[in-house]
Amino acid sequence: MFAKTQKVVPKDELSISSQYLIKASLVNKLTAGVYTYLPLGLMTLKKIENIIRQEMLKLDAQEILMPSLTPKELWETTGRWQTFSELYKIKDQSKKEYALAATHEEVIVPLIKNFIKSYKDLPLGVFQIQNKFRSELRAKSGLIRGREFIMKDLYSFHLDENDLNDYYNKVIQSYHNIFKRCGIGDLTFLTLSSGGTFSKYSHEFQTISSAGEDTIYLCNNCKQAINKEISTEQKKCSNCGNPKLEQKKSIEVGNIFKLMDKYSRPFNLNYQDKTGENKIILMGCYGIGLGRLLASVVEINHDPEGIIWPKNLTPFQLHLLDFDNQSFSKNYYQQLQTEGFTVLYDERELSAGQKLKDADLLGISVRLISSAKTKEKLEIKYRSESKTKIIDFKTLINELKHYYFNV
Amino acid sequence: MFAKTQKVVPKDELSISSQYLIKASLVNKLTAGVYTYLPLGLMTLKKIENIIRQEMLKLDAQEILMPSLTPKELWETTGRWQTFSELYKIKDQSKKEYALAATHEEVIVPLIKNFIKSYKDLPLGVFQIQNKFRSELRAKSGLIRGREFIMKDLYSFHLDENDLNDYYNKVIQSYHNIFKRCGIGDLTFLTLSSGGTFSKYSHEFQTISSAGEDTIYLCNNCKQAINKEISTEQKKCSNCGNPKLEQKKSIEVGNIFKLMDKYSRPFNLNYQDKTGENKIILMGCYGIGLGRLLASVVEINHDPEGIIWPKNLTPFQLHLLDFDNQSFSKNYYQQLQTEGFTVLYDERELSAGQKLKDADLLGISVRLISSAKTKEKLEIKYRSESKTKIIDFKTLINELKHYYFNV
Repeated sequence: MFAKTQKVVPKDELSISSQYLIKASLVNKLTAGVYTYLPLGLMTLKKIENIIRQEMLKLDAQEILMPSLTPKELWETTGRWQTFSELYKIKDQSKKEYALAATHEEVIVPLIKNFIKSYKDLPLGVFQIQNKFRSELRAKSGLIRGREFIMKDLYSFHLDENDLNDYYNKVIQSYHNIFKRCGIGDLTFLTLSSGGTFSKYSHEFQTISSAGEDTIYLCNNCKQAINKEISTEQKKCSNCGNPKLEQKKSIEVGNIFKLMDKYSRPFNLNYQDKTGENKIILMGCYGIGLGRLLASVVEINHDPEGIIWPKNLTPFQLHLLDFDNQSFSKNYYQQLQTEGFTVLYDERELSAGQKLKDADLLGISVRLISSAKTKEKLEIKYRSESKTKIIDFKTLINELKHYYFNV
Repeated sequence: MFAKTQKVVPKDELSISSQYLIKASLVNKLTAGVYTYLPLGLMTLKKIENIIRQEMLKLDAQEILMPSLTPKELWETTGRWQTFSELYKIKDQSKKEYALAATHEEVIVPLIKNFIKSYKDLPLGVFQIQNKFRSELRAKSGLIRGREFIMKDLYSFHLDENDLNDYYNKVIQSYHNIFKRCGIGDLTFLTLSSGGTFSKYSHEFQTISSAGEDTIYLCNNCKQAINKEISTEQKKCSNCGNPKLEQKKSIEVGNIFKLMDKYSRPFNLNYQDKTGENKIILMGCYGIGLGRLLASVVEINHDPEGIIWPKNLTPFQLHLLDFDNQSFSKNYYQQLQTEGFTVLYDERELSAGQKLKDADLLGISVRLISSAKTKEKLEIKYRSESKTKIIDFKTLINELKHYYFNV
């Protein structure tokens, strides 16, 4: 691991998550709102990516990869070349103008128009997991609001409003699965919010955190919430009518919109119904920022010593520390990998104290220690607990298989 | 599969590979040099990505993900803000200037400077697989020369020239493995070429193809080549001295450079040697364009009917066509997946002829047909062969396991 832990964090990093992510060298800051993912950070990012991809495939959505260089004409068709103030605009050598895609409606709608003609082709879900660019005026919240960031966006295409509503409800369940698997399910709530210009309301997924930029009113009865921005209209739970709502700071970790015909109409994205009549296709879109999700997980899973990764996102499954140049610790390192675990092995010539400090900062879910004291056994400690125990290798393997693979 | 095969290809697509990739709907053209990867194209792209990643990890290289938005100052430090004419330049809302990374030396060198201090940290290999942007004046060769494209770049960091040379030779072997696994090993040759400004020679990997923009002189004795651009200096094989060289058109599918101190010096990337003295770190860099590699594979693996995927890159392993609404074909579809194969199932209400035509165009390595004629058996045909045979399901599974899993 070339990316060693750091003592100093850039002064303008205000969020706890970016301070820990930078100190643990999971990410490195290039400039405001722009980060490099270092090896451990990229490992966690890919775990999030895989969870999201699996849940998207369960919805029968199909994955594509769209470009970032997008011609000006597409953004003029929807009017966003002028109105989207965070759009990065760019010219090539021949003076042709592009926007760096801040979102991809302007690409996917004309793309889909090439392929979808008939009611038989609908409904359809298509998703992407890739970079987006937004020229944010303030980018002070680390990975929570970046100028360049990785998003999953799912776009759905429908016959009519019923078809859209059915799909929208399935995506709500899929999002609950994603946040649960990422270890923040208990603190993440479906939240009614303003729908912008194209529908009265939309939904967000808000995770309770003191680092949040949003405020929600949470119903402890049905576990749904309302964003403060629409709370003047809505004084009770929109789902169960409960008037006792609790005010909380929160981070928006996902959002879902019924786009209706907002983008299909400017591009004339139509289909032929059973009678041969042309009808407009209705759309939904469903976003999750992967870097923001990663940072949110850190915001709500840390202690004064460092990060506490949920087991599905831990960059390595095991962190094996060798203290006294134990002859068999290298064997254990090999055997643990043979048993199917990913292992970060700390055999550096440093003090036990420094290794323990780094292990707490990195936050790998399970720490193992091989030392003169443990002899041929190993000490195991879960990052989320304080107690340690020394057990023999066979018992350890059984415990770890139960913890990670449920066997 | 929403992305159906196409009859019409954009007129300005000159290369055979982009014509087939667009007709088969593996990619979609957004504008010159800018493409969307559709589901089947993305599947093949990811197979290439995995092969490359595995070979990089065998070199003990560590993976990171760098941003595309890179501050102007970095490019001024190396002088490339003025001299790199393909650099896309961009301003944000506060008028801060960035380049869209066309390559990442200007990001990785200052990054590594944060972490590498001592001779003990070297040698080091770090790689990325991600988008790059180049404002190419002409972008007429499809995925072979894009304005936005996906590259693997490996950067290596060294104590001295011997250390760099050792690593460089290991990468040559790694690249041979990659091209072999991608099915173009027999036609791909290590080629001596001009080194640009920082060393007299460098090496490219050139794949023989009539679609190539390059010309090489190939030695049939030792299977190495010389790029025509340096052939006035070098009239015989640089490796074995053979004076009989064969002229061939070729595509550059990889390049490797000894950067020496070209980028480490402007950023003062130093290390402390054993005596405590500060020395400059030497660098190598090693690129492969994934889209270009994918297109090159198509350039040399097609027939008049369509693509012929090598088995390691085929988007699905099996293409199962059902002709006569056979009741058991859906069972076979399930069972083939249970046996561990990825299967594209064509149960569309189209004629047998249309399905066969699409199968040839898509080029999936193995085609299976279930029809009234095959009864409870299946017809198998390899895309690269012309003969077909009808065999029972158990025999089929054994044959396929041997073909794909070597068991």
